[in-house]
Amino acid sequence: MLINCDMGESYGTWKIGHDQTIMPFVDMANIACGMHASDPSVMLKTVRYAKQNKVQIGAHPGYPDLQGFGRRYIEMPVEELKAYVIYQLGALNGICQSEGVAISYVKPHGALYNAMMKKDEIYIALLEAIASYDINLPLMIMAVPDHLHYSKLAEQYGVKLIFEAFVDRAYLSNGRLTPRTLPGACHEDLEVICAQAMQLTADNSVTSIEGQEVKIKADTLCIHGDGKLAADIAKTLRAKITEYTESVACK
Amino acid sequence: MLINCDMGESYGTWKIGHDQTIMPFVDMANIACGMHASDPSVMLKTVRYAKQNKVQIGAHPGYPDLQGFGRRYIEMPVEELKAYVIYQLGALNGICQSEGVAISYVKPHGALYNAMMKKDEIYIALLEAIASYDINLPLMIMAVPDHLHYSKLAEQYGVKLIFEAFVDRAYLSNGRLTPRTLPGACHEDLEVICAQAMQLTADNSVTSIEGQEVKIKADTLCIHGDGKLAADIAKTLRAKITEYTESVACK
Amino acid sequence: MLINCDMGESYGTWKIGHDQTIMPFVDMANIACGMHASDPSVMLKTVRYAKQNKVQIGAHPGYPDLQGFGRRYIEMPVEELKAYVIYQLGALNGICQSEGVAISYVKPHGALYNAMMKKDEIYIALLEAIASYDINLPLMIMAVPDHLHYSKLAEQYGVKLIFEAFVDRAYLSNGRLTPRTLPGACHEDLEVICAQAMQLTADNSVTSIEGQEVKIKADTLCIHGDGKLAADIAKTLRAKITEYTESVACK
Amino acid sequence: MLINCDMGESYGTWKIGHDQTIMPFVDMANIACGMHASDPSVMLKTVRYAKQNKVQIGAHPGYPDLQGFGRRYIEMPVEELKAYVIYQLGALNGICQSEGVAISYVKPHGALYNAMMKKDEIYIALLEAIASYDINLPLMIMAVPDHLHYSKLAEQYGVKLIFEAFVDRAYLSNGRLTPRTLPGACHEDLEVICAQAMQLTADNSVTSIEGQEVKIKADTLCIHGDGKLAADIAKTLRAKITEYTESVACK
Repeated sequence: MLINCDMGESYGTWKIGHDQTIMPFVDMANIACGMHASDPSVMLKTVRYAKQNKVQIGAHPGYPDLQGFGRRYIEMPVEELKAYVIYQLGALNGICQSEGVAISYVKPHGALYNAMMKKDEIYIALLEAIASYDINLPLMIMAVPDHLHYSKLAEQYGVKLIFEAFVDRAYLSNGRLTPRTLPGACHEDLEVICAQAMQLTADNSVTSIEGQEVKIKADTLCIHGDGKLAADIAKTLRAKITEYTESVACK
Repeated sequence: MLINCDMGESYGTWKIGHDQTIMPFVDMANIACGMHASDPSVMLKTVRYAKQNKVQIGAHPGYPDLQGFGRRYIEMPVEELKAYVIYQLGALNGICQSEGVAISYVKPHGALYNAMMKKDEIYIALLEAIASYDINLPLMIMAVPDHLHYSKLAEQYGVKLIFEAFVDRAYLSNGRLTPRTLPGACHEDLEVICAQAMQLTADNSVTSIEGQEVKIKADTLCIHGDGKLAADIAKTLRAKITEYTESVACK
Repeated sequence: MLINCDMGESYGTWKIGHDQTIMPFVDMANIACGMHASDPSVMLKTVRYAKQNKVQIGAHPGYPDLQGFGRRYIEMPVEELKAYVIYQLGALNGICQSEGVAISYVKPHGALYNAMMKKDEIYIALLEAIASYDINLPLMIMAVPDHLHYSKLAEQYGVKLIFEAFVDRAYLSNGRLTPRTLPGACHEDLEVICAQAMQLTADNSVTSIEGQEVKIKADTLCIHGDGKLAADIAKTLRAKITEYTESVACK
Repeated sequence: MLINCDMGESYGTWKIGHDQTIMPFVDMANIACGMHASDPSVMLKTVRYAKQNKVQIGAHPGYPDLQGFGRRYIEMPVEELKAYVIYQLGALNGICQSEGVAISYVKPHGALYNAMMKKDEIYIALLEAIASYDINLPLMIMAVPDHLHYSKLAEQYGVKLIFEAFVDRAYLSNGRLTPRTLPGACHEDLEVICAQAMQLTADNSVTSIEGQEVKIKADTLCIHGDGKLAADIAKTLRAKITEYTESVACK
């Protein structure tokens, strides 16, 4: 089980996240590409941290909307969307190339991520964008009970998938996230977060907000880098997952 | 002698240039990278034209300033500038990669081009940016009488140069361009433009606005794609240069 | 019957429209406010044309999306939308104030206009924005058969309305516009355009694309400034409407 | 002696400063206008804080450069600069108007502030912008020994001036600020800051970094809202200045 985290979301003078503190504890850094957050200097700095820490670099493309941080859905033709995504993959990869590394997967951001999970035409646009840019880059999507729907489409376009689950968000019984507008949508307690992480890791399941066990098979756990506890969560989860992995390996 | 032209400088709904009309007559398309002009969709379309017409694609990075079209000098640390340039090279190359082609040189735009020719620290920043991104990409700069100064620096960083001359701008006797604010700075007559082009091609010289012959050794001639005569100039120059090249080859 | 036209939609180096040619023939200029198009210099120039031609100035606010020209719907909380609208009213009015004039109405642009006509919460957000900024500024909306729905809401917030009809768009029998994606959605023939304009003026009706007469009571006719015929349409309509107005006045 | 502070410099999701904590202790809030920082929602929120705390609102216009936070000098024609400034005054005043308040002075930001103090043509562009927008708005500039130069020009354009001094920056003996690149340019000790503030208040002077007393006559002291000590500085200075003012009044 790998840990992924959004990184490089500062912009100019404005800072978000604790990238330097958290980088040592994650396996995969989803780096913003300058459209919803980040700028070339921030990207360069973040790529360097990732490289120093031997962390995989993922492109984290979003809608072109700095002011909305890529969280506002923008209606646009899929051809336009594909061009935006390819542009962002290339831009981040250019920065990587100048540091002798490369992007190794793609994880869409915010409203684009949500739209991908809700609308097949947008999911397909992302698959097509990746297929035309580099068929070897896997796409990271949300691990859901109906994952076969997504796998079949991805296979059709020849794109590999990485499934991620969330450790600090409450799940509904249908395997989707509880909307942030509802009470209890976000876990803020370190113990609760670790418990959910370990259940996902050891048992491939979560307990929904309604108390039901839901099967969720994930390759990676997403943590958030901008909360107060972010560094604690990263450090603690890293330790627990490493411990679990070693204990399993021993058997 | 090759012909190069700035292309893909439209933005969203706003159109500039006659890319489709001119593309068949040029050898090298300098394609804007989304910071001073262009957007991912325009870039994709322009890369496709270039590919169809077997035209070399050059990255045409500029200052991040759509409103000023990259013509306003922006003071910034060289480290920041390098990150901007690498970002733009990567972004355009990403678009190219999705179409199975690649950028083959770099030509800075507007105020960045001017700054490069005036300030060594900016010229060096560009050399370093290219060296770190892809040492095989040549940098296109202005053919000037003091070209050795630029060649030596480029050699130091291992970057190749392409020298370009201008067919529709009047030269000063020092081999630099007459500022646009002075009368007669721009040639608007097709015959004058062709004469200057052929003198540059056949004789490696221009006649300055003061009437002096100045030695200018260029690899490529720059034409502009947004004037009324742009298509005529492209077509006529193409014919004349091809004719000249063949006549020389016959000898 | 007044003629209104969108103006000042250029941006930096990029030009759209024939503002100078058309201004003398219209009564109301809807001037973009820098979020979907225009910039401070373009706004200043356009305000000066309007002033010289004694044309009323309307604020033409849009979604913050230059690349999409305000034609892409952006999901956002209404409180945020209201702030965007007030900002734009103030910005254009500031430019006006420096020229000794003022804005005299508000007409939303593109996706914001469409959203206003479709979603009451957005229509209400616009009414609230205007009410808080300046209750004396009327809001221009589309003249529709169900105009009472809009009038009642406007009255509730104390905001006056101006109803506009379109001369170059085919209407559906329900009094809404034929989507641009359907054939025949846009009139391109000067005679057809004039006929629709005069039917709206003299008879308060349009003949729908299905051949039905639909009652549409408009205060102003919208013409577009960026088509090839734009200047011809403006000039001809101006003459016809003036002639009609005088003929009615004589009776 | 009044206290002024830059406010409303957050942007979208990105936060800077401690506006709510500091607002109660200042007299004048310089509010960013959306070009170098801030956005309509941030501006609205900041105007509301200022209103609640009965703090004067000043427009804080900057260069159009979010990524550079208005700290990068951008070369542009003065006519263009004037349009940018008027646009920003109008935009902030529009937001104010919707809250029943108004801007009462203008203080340029960052690179624009520095350019104003260095280049007369830019200072004059600002005077002209204000004169055309609202001749009653004073312009805040830096209190310098050669203040007469600035006063005479301002008088010529009919614009009033407000002079400000800095409490947390070391002065050179010529009455200008020690560049940030030099050691000791910024005071970080609360006592040093208070001492400089009280010397400016009670004695109209500062002691330069070279140890010389320099006469500086200021109307207002500028504090910064984004440092760690920002709230402490605001609170302490407020108390000291109020105490001093009352003691003087008693005499």
